[in-house]
Amino acid sequence: MSSLKPEQEEREKRILDAAAELIIRQGYDKTTMSDVAEEAGVSRGIVYLHFENKDKLFEALVYRETLLYAQAWLDHIEADPRGGTIGGIYRAVLYAIKSRPFMVAMMRRDRRTFGSYLHKPDNLFASMQSASFSADFFQALQEVGVIRKDVDPVVTAHIMDVLSYGLVTIGEFRQPDELPPYDVVMEAIGDMMDRLLAPEDGGNSEGGKAVIRQLAATSRAYFEQMKQAKEKKEGTES
Amino acid sequence: MSSLKPEQEEREKRILDAAAELIIRQGYDKTTMSDVAEEAGVSRGIVYLHFENKDKLFEALVYRETLLYAQAWLDHIEADPRGGTIGGIYRAVLYAIKSRPFMVAMMRRDRRTFGSYLHKPDNLFASMQSASFSADFFQALQEVGVIRKDVDPVVTAHIMDVLSYGLVTIGEFRQPDELPPYDVVMEAIGDMMDRLLAPEDGGNSEGGKAVIRQLAATSRAYFEQMKQAKEKKEGTES
Repeated sequence: MSSLKPEQEEREKRILDAAAELIIRQGYDKTTMSDVAEEAGVSRGIVYLHFENKDKLFEALVYRETLLYAQAWLDHIEADPRGGTIGGIYRAVLYAIKSRPFMVAMMRRDRRTFGSYLHKPDNLFASMQSASFSADFFQALQEVGVIRKDVDPVVTAHIMDVLSYGLVTIGEFRQPDELPPYDVVMEAIGDMMDRLLAPEDGGNSEGGKAVIRQLAATSRAYFEQMKQAKEKKEGTES
Repeated sequence: MSSLKPEQEEREKRILDAAAELIIRQGYDKTTMSDVAEEAGVSRGIVYLHFENKDKLFEALVYRETLLYAQAWLDHIEADPRGGTIGGIYRAVLYAIKSRPFMVAMMRRDRRTFGSYLHKPDNLFASMQSASFSADFFQALQEVGVIRKDVDPVVTAHIMDVLSYGLVTIGEFRQPDELPPYDVVMEAIGDMMDRLLAPEDGGNSEGGKAVIRQLAATSRAYFEQMKQAKEKKEGTES
């Protein structure tokens, strides 16, 4: 796929955008290759030229959306002078979540969105780690002075995860008009993180950014490896 | 039901305990009146003597479990000298949640547990407010000096809710052995609440307890009213 010509790349992007749009709107089960072609304004044949079948298309979309989510997170951190503080890092997570509805659905393994795909034995979600803060990541942040030394990294990483899952699942239990504006909540949670976890001086933002860049590079490599392993496995099977 | 003799009350309790146990284990759909009779060690006829049908039994259980949950919360607060501080109040929520698996399933409208009941048009969950911290409750806590005055009650109540939903839903995305021990998390979240929300002096615990007692009384009254309204409505229909 890396050998696509610019116009093919543009077309593939259009097809993936159309698929994301449709799957969010009407779910994986109801979305056909013809729907995708129509939404993207191309012929059915062209869609099949890019993707062998619906599952290949879907999985390419999952990979793309995960990378775009990670990129949105990273960009938000880089653009903010205080982006590498703990409040900045978590604010950027919430910002990235907000901008990518497909990722939110992925995080909560949304049944309405993914339907029968979730029951396939080798579905991508089963092998993907769910988006989460690891204790290792927290420890790295502690070492560079982003997080206070007296905080337990395992428990704190877990509580930040709990908060993320709460944010992506609360919509199932509450009407949107019952909730305060997302931006206000995002800011309040960022302030909360600073207050709870940052050292007296607010924390070493540049050190935090270096840790994040490292994490982004490692995740990208892990992801590429996983993608290739899956392609290779499928190649052997077919 | 309040006119039951002690031995009938004891038997009714046994039937409800058996039903709770079975529904948690195998779900609402698979649990029959015969299963409940067997698990409770009584005849099927006795179960029908107490409850007209499975839904009546189920709804009695939902009412009972909600009251027991609220009682567990209240008891935990009363027993703790610092129970009326914000950390104490939230620790007690987590304690009460932990001790009542049926309530956890109710909070997350668990599909495996409640199955087809969730799709009934007049199901109890649709009319019940989900367990949540209201901004009014937070304001009352601010007025008696449990929470700092400079905190926004709407946003803060929402963040506490997000955390509760995260705690009851994270089990769907993670294996139990990936999670730190619940008690440790419970303590850490309590400390976090104190650090974030309590005034310098830690807060007026007695004032907090008074607010909670008031809330418990109001909720019980609301609950009784709802129960009677439903019974009356069903009486008219039948």
